[in-house]
Amino acid sequence: MDFASDNTAGVAPPILRAIAEASTGFALGYGNDDWTRRLERRFAEIFEREVAVFLVPTGTAANALAVAHLSPPWGAVFCHAMSHMATDECGAPEFFGGGLKLVELPGDDGKIAADAVKARLERGAWGGPHHVTPSVLSLTQATEAGTIYRLEEIRRLSAIAHAGGLAVHMDGARFANALVRMHASPAEATWKAGVDVLSLGATKAGALAAEAVVFFDPALAQGMAERRKRGGQLLSKHRFIAAQFEAYFADDLWLSLARHANTMANRLAAGLARIGIKPVWPVEANEVFVLVPRATDERLKAAGATYYVRSAEWLPTNTQTADARLLRLVTSFATVSEEVDRFVSLAGDR
Amino acid sequence: MDFASDNTAGVAPPILRAIAEASTGFALGYGNDDWTRRLERRFAEIFEREVAVFLVPTGTAANALAVAHLSPPWGAVFCHAMSHMATDECGAPEFFGGGLKLVELPGDDGKIAADAVKARLERGAWGGPHHVTPSVLSLTQATEAGTIYRLEEIRRLSAIAHAGGLAVHMDGARFANALVRMHASPAEATWKAGVDVLSLGATKAGALAAEAVVFFDPALAQGMAERRKRGGQLLSKHRFIAAQFEAYFADDLWLSLARHANTMANRLAAGLARIGIKPVWPVEANEVFVLVPRATDERLKAAGATYYVRSAEWLPTNTQTADARLLRLVTSFATVSEEVDRFVSLAGDR
Amino acid sequence: MDFASDNTAGVAPPILRAIAEASTGFALGYGNDDWTRRLERRFAEIFEREVAVFLVPTGTAANALAVAHLSPPWGAVFCHAMSHMATDECGAPEFFGGGLKLVELPGDDGKIAADAVKARLERGAWGGPHHVTPSVLSLTQATEAGTIYRLEEIRRLSAIAHAGGLAVHMDGARFANALVRMHASPAEATWKAGVDVLSLGATKAGALAAEAVVFFDPALAQGMAERRKRGGQLLSKHRFIAAQFEAYFADDLWLSLARHANTMANRLAAGLARIGIKPVWPVEANEVFVLVPRATDERLKAAGATYYVRSAEWLPTNTQTADARLLRLVTSFATVSEEVDRFVSLAGDR
Amino acid sequence: MDFASDNTAGVAPPILRAIAEASTGFALGYGNDDWTRRLERRFAEIFEREVAVFLVPTGTAANALAVAHLSPPWGAVFCHAMSHMATDECGAPEFFGGGLKLVELPGDDGKIAADAVKARLERGAWGGPHHVTPSVLSLTQATEAGTIYRLEEIRRLSAIAHAGGLAVHMDGARFANALVRMHASPAEATWKAGVDVLSLGATKAGALAAEAVVFFDPALAQGMAERRKRGGQLLSKHRFIAAQFEAYFADDLWLSLARHANTMANRLAAGLARIGIKPVWPVEANEVFVLVPRATDERLKAAGATYYVRSAEWLPTNTQTADARLLRLVTSFATVSEEVDRFVSLAGDR
Repeated sequence: MDFASDNTAGVAPPILRAIAEASTGFALGYGNDDWTRRLERRFAEIFEREVAVFLVPTGTAANALAVAHLSPPWGAVFCHAMSHMATDECGAPEFFGGGLKLVELPGDDGKIAADAVKARLERGAWGGPHHVTPSVLSLTQATEAGTIYRLEEIRRLSAIAHAGGLAVHMDGARFANALVRMHASPAEATWKAGVDVLSLGATKAGALAAEAVVFFDPALAQGMAERRKRGGQLLSKHRFIAAQFEAYFADDLWLSLARHANTMANRLAAGLARIGIKPVWPVEANEVFVLVPRATDERLKAAGATYYVRSAEWLPTNTQTADARLLRLVTSFATVSEEVDRFVSLAGDR
Repeated sequence: MDFASDNTAGVAPPILRAIAEASTGFALGYGNDDWTRRLERRFAEIFEREVAVFLVPTGTAANALAVAHLSPPWGAVFCHAMSHMATDECGAPEFFGGGLKLVELPGDDGKIAADAVKARLERGAWGGPHHVTPSVLSLTQATEAGTIYRLEEIRRLSAIAHAGGLAVHMDGARFANALVRMHASPAEATWKAGVDVLSLGATKAGALAAEAVVFFDPALAQGMAERRKRGGQLLSKHRFIAAQFEAYFADDLWLSLARHANTMANRLAAGLARIGIKPVWPVEANEVFVLVPRATDERLKAAGATYYVRSAEWLPTNTQTADARLLRLVTSFATVSEEVDRFVSLAGDR
Repeated sequence: MDFASDNTAGVAPPILRAIAEASTGFALGYGNDDWTRRLERRFAEIFEREVAVFLVPTGTAANALAVAHLSPPWGAVFCHAMSHMATDECGAPEFFGGGLKLVELPGDDGKIAADAVKARLERGAWGGPHHVTPSVLSLTQATEAGTIYRLEEIRRLSAIAHAGGLAVHMDGARFANALVRMHASPAEATWKAGVDVLSLGATKAGALAAEAVVFFDPALAQGMAERRKRGGQLLSKHRFIAAQFEAYFADDLWLSLARHANTMANRLAAGLARIGIKPVWPVEANEVFVLVPRATDERLKAAGATYYVRSAEWLPTNTQTADARLLRLVTSFATVSEEVDRFVSLAGDR
Repeated sequence: MDFASDNTAGVAPPILRAIAEASTGFALGYGNDDWTRRLERRFAEIFEREVAVFLVPTGTAANALAVAHLSPPWGAVFCHAMSHMATDECGAPEFFGGGLKLVELPGDDGKIAADAVKARLERGAWGGPHHVTPSVLSLTQATEAGTIYRLEEIRRLSAIAHAGGLAVHMDGARFANALVRMHASPAEATWKAGVDVLSLGATKAGALAAEAVVFFDPALAQGMAERRKRGGQLLSKHRFIAAQFEAYFADDLWLSLARHANTMANRLAAGLARIGIKPVWPVEANEVFVLVPRATDERLKAAGATYYVRSAEWLPTNTQTADARLLRLVTSFATVSEEVDRFVSLAGDR
């Protein structure tokens, strides 16, 4: 009953096989290999346009490199207050960005509200020599609340951002989970809706360590190769990270894996709802957040379930009680329905 | 006939197996797993003392994080002019170190001469508010010339460094190659000789992507976990990097792999010497540098051999000629003797 | 009728004379001069203990250097959301601090509430490798709302900060204005109340360009000389910045100048109150904030008054109206009562 | 007999008067004042074209901001090994430049040889993801050896730099001294010869603290206002730094002051030559370097002369002897001929 994170799963077997298969013969390092060349073409196909792609081993690096490249050091990067960048990267964007500033925005269901961006742009003191200049709007897809931005939301947010001179970055650590839910193509869900740069994560979705920074306008990527290298993020045996992505995309594996994770989250949410435990946010990807009494939390843990208890500070005030615990339950490609059902059954026990 | 680099090889089979075996079940991310815990103990055994270990996916990151941690931003890091840090990391040490300065020292055979360090410390204008302060001496073991620092050389250099207030860092991207050559224990070759922090590379030696920063005084490592994280260098599925190292150390695999690579280099050097092509620097690890006429270079390449031609600027002046090319030939755990012999045979052809 | 800022005034005549007098003969640069040596002793007398003092030409530099020195790059600096550091320094703390993060706290009357600090420390996810670590609490004295922290408030905030491992920084750009109001000694208002490092401003108070970073524990200042130099903040003709401070302190000039500025603010506030325009925040230093109808604002400007209209976002919601404008009126050593009275009279006109 | 530096002099009386005169009435801060506006026009007249000018209080800041603005963080700034930037700024360029790298070039008489730049560009491993990219060539005018680059030298160096994609920066801490010597107009000595950005110093030349970064292509200056502010280099009472420059330029004061300093240096050099002490480098500005026996050094110091003894490492090898001391003697606008003559007389004593 592991629901701690989607990074607690191992590696999806086809990706593991691709790694082993790539380990034959010699290949030049640092991306000068056939796997990488093939993969670059594959990215272009998937996103239906020329792109510039940079593979890196961690999602923190993908985000930090992306916003550092899109923002001057005196830029302000707008992100949700719950976003990974703001809360869980130990200041990586600020470090890579030469001391840029994150501006944390509120928003229901883990989503930045378009009005909040607008208001903040209009109200704040920005630019000139005295104030930082808004440079990037970063959207997390799926969000840290397990919800997703719909196409029209992305379009509206991007339009506001672009009108204000901000580039649009998407933190897609769980991009595939969002994609299979919204029935949109990768292109529609990104550049066609206004996204300029995407951090596309494969690690949580089944890879060993594989993330991509995708520039939809290759001209924007000038200097990014140097930035990645001096950030210590250019793998020497680069074929192995390319091979992970190649397998991830082959036969739509990435969509199947994400669909499974989402299905498990739906099953979990439905099961818990049946016993009166309703998710606090819509379950739209592979995360379920529920408020349970302290006793339930303890019983579940005693039975061996793993998950994180999150701070209730993000919840609407009226749902917070001294006794309640906010559980974050994450499913992955490796989650099996028996474990989901066992968890639900345990949660319902009295 | 691939002699381009030791990172052009794939992954040693036992390490590949360890990755596959680690991919079962769930494990908490970011190093909170059994593989990492076991590995930390293993490092302590191998180095015969408590150490603080930080695994990262690239050697550039290992070096940059290490020197950034040992030096204030106004520090000067002494390194050889040929060192990877000075020439091939696109400024990573400067970036991670908040703008520290590398001081490039000369020295025969790719090795920093003790006298050069002494002279530079005595002669330069250091410290006070106006000048940067010498903070770290970084030794590359094995060197970029394929030579190694002997124990007494490390001891002497460390003594001079420590007397001047500098910490000693060892860039051990090819540490195992040096170790098996010098018949010393890991402890003797490092902290017992005065090394404070070691970048221990496994990637070039047979891993997929696995490097370790080893602090021999764990107290010095305070804050390093944060530095690694904000550097985007903390892998989420951390068990897989720990598993690589575990297999690398098991049954002295690391020493066997290094021994093989060194043996191949010896065979290559001996073969070339027999036909009159003498190595320009002593062959003490897994790299052979030779000067050949342009025609030989072209013939070898035409026959499919791969290697890099290096700038002859590092050579003693009298050995440089307009026609000569300096070939760097690197062997690895994956090099086979047939290819070595074929290369030698081709080189000897007229 | 200049109320735009206290930095729109010129230089107080005794300070101007001191500059001229210092301009005789030769003196070594960079602080190796008699003025600087005398001044360092003077600081020790004024603050009743050994201190380490670093003079710099701007308040932004004083703040940024101070917090950069007290915080690791992965630190979080708690400050008021209205603070200069958070709003008006274009990211200088983040730049000097290698990418540190400012955490903006709310609080009535421009003051950080002790409970807010406590709650934030307890509630937030801090430290470990994933989160930044609270490192500094920065108090602005007098605040950007023209109020002051009382001794007991500083003591309580410092106690909470120290208990949480944070150092206490005071941004004293208007320190003298606060001091003369609270009838406390410089020592009582700073280190005796828990302040670790003070940015002491003289520029707004009558100097040309003179700010000091004062470490109450000189041991904490190690490396600060290098940090100042590489920050481009070490004046070569240093005697002239020391001379400014020497004159500023002589015969309690600093207290007289501040008293005059405060008196003018009081007179302005009292005059406006008499005609029904009450200050929105207590007038405790040299700033008066009032809400006036748009027509009044326009009439005042048309008559030649200068001041800034501030965003009303900081006001309690119930005081905000579409028509109202929030004027910030700043007095200085150079403000004369006739201008104050004329302003009041104009404001009262209908 | 003060020859320690040109920053040991006080402030030239007309500049001191201008400061006092500027201290009347109120003026908006941060450059929104009449002095600054007038000065910007004055700069355009002097340099015969539109320029973007940024005033800062220190020469270190002027240099560091300039190269940081011209170079990406992965850039390499070519400068002379003796340059202030390389030796005396405690890493300021690296700090402001986000970890850029200085490449120190040799060259006789303190001047970078055109061939050295060419050779270095051709020979080095530059760019690509692995190596830093040459971004700026910085020339010191007058040099740290007291010599000057002639127009044709600047033109040739600029042409090589531009051909290689490098911008040309001139560190003009002693620009006026060079200018009056070469009988060229400010325009001819800078942008007409290929200089892109000039750090123009007034402090050593007679100001209190006033340096300017001058962009000859204003478009290149975009973002510089923010960079200066976040570097803590934007003075609040900005009129006083503008007033210094205004007086410095008025009635060609800057040229007269520089001419006097140069004349004193010539007198000193001629006097010393007469008694057999020949300058080691051509005396072309306001610095004289001589080798004297230890006894002479001691006698001069005992008589109260002040100057710095410099490391002899820069001298041609054959001129170095164990006994000799290399004295750096700097004259300024405040040097008087009696002191020069007294020094010469003392030096000649036996």
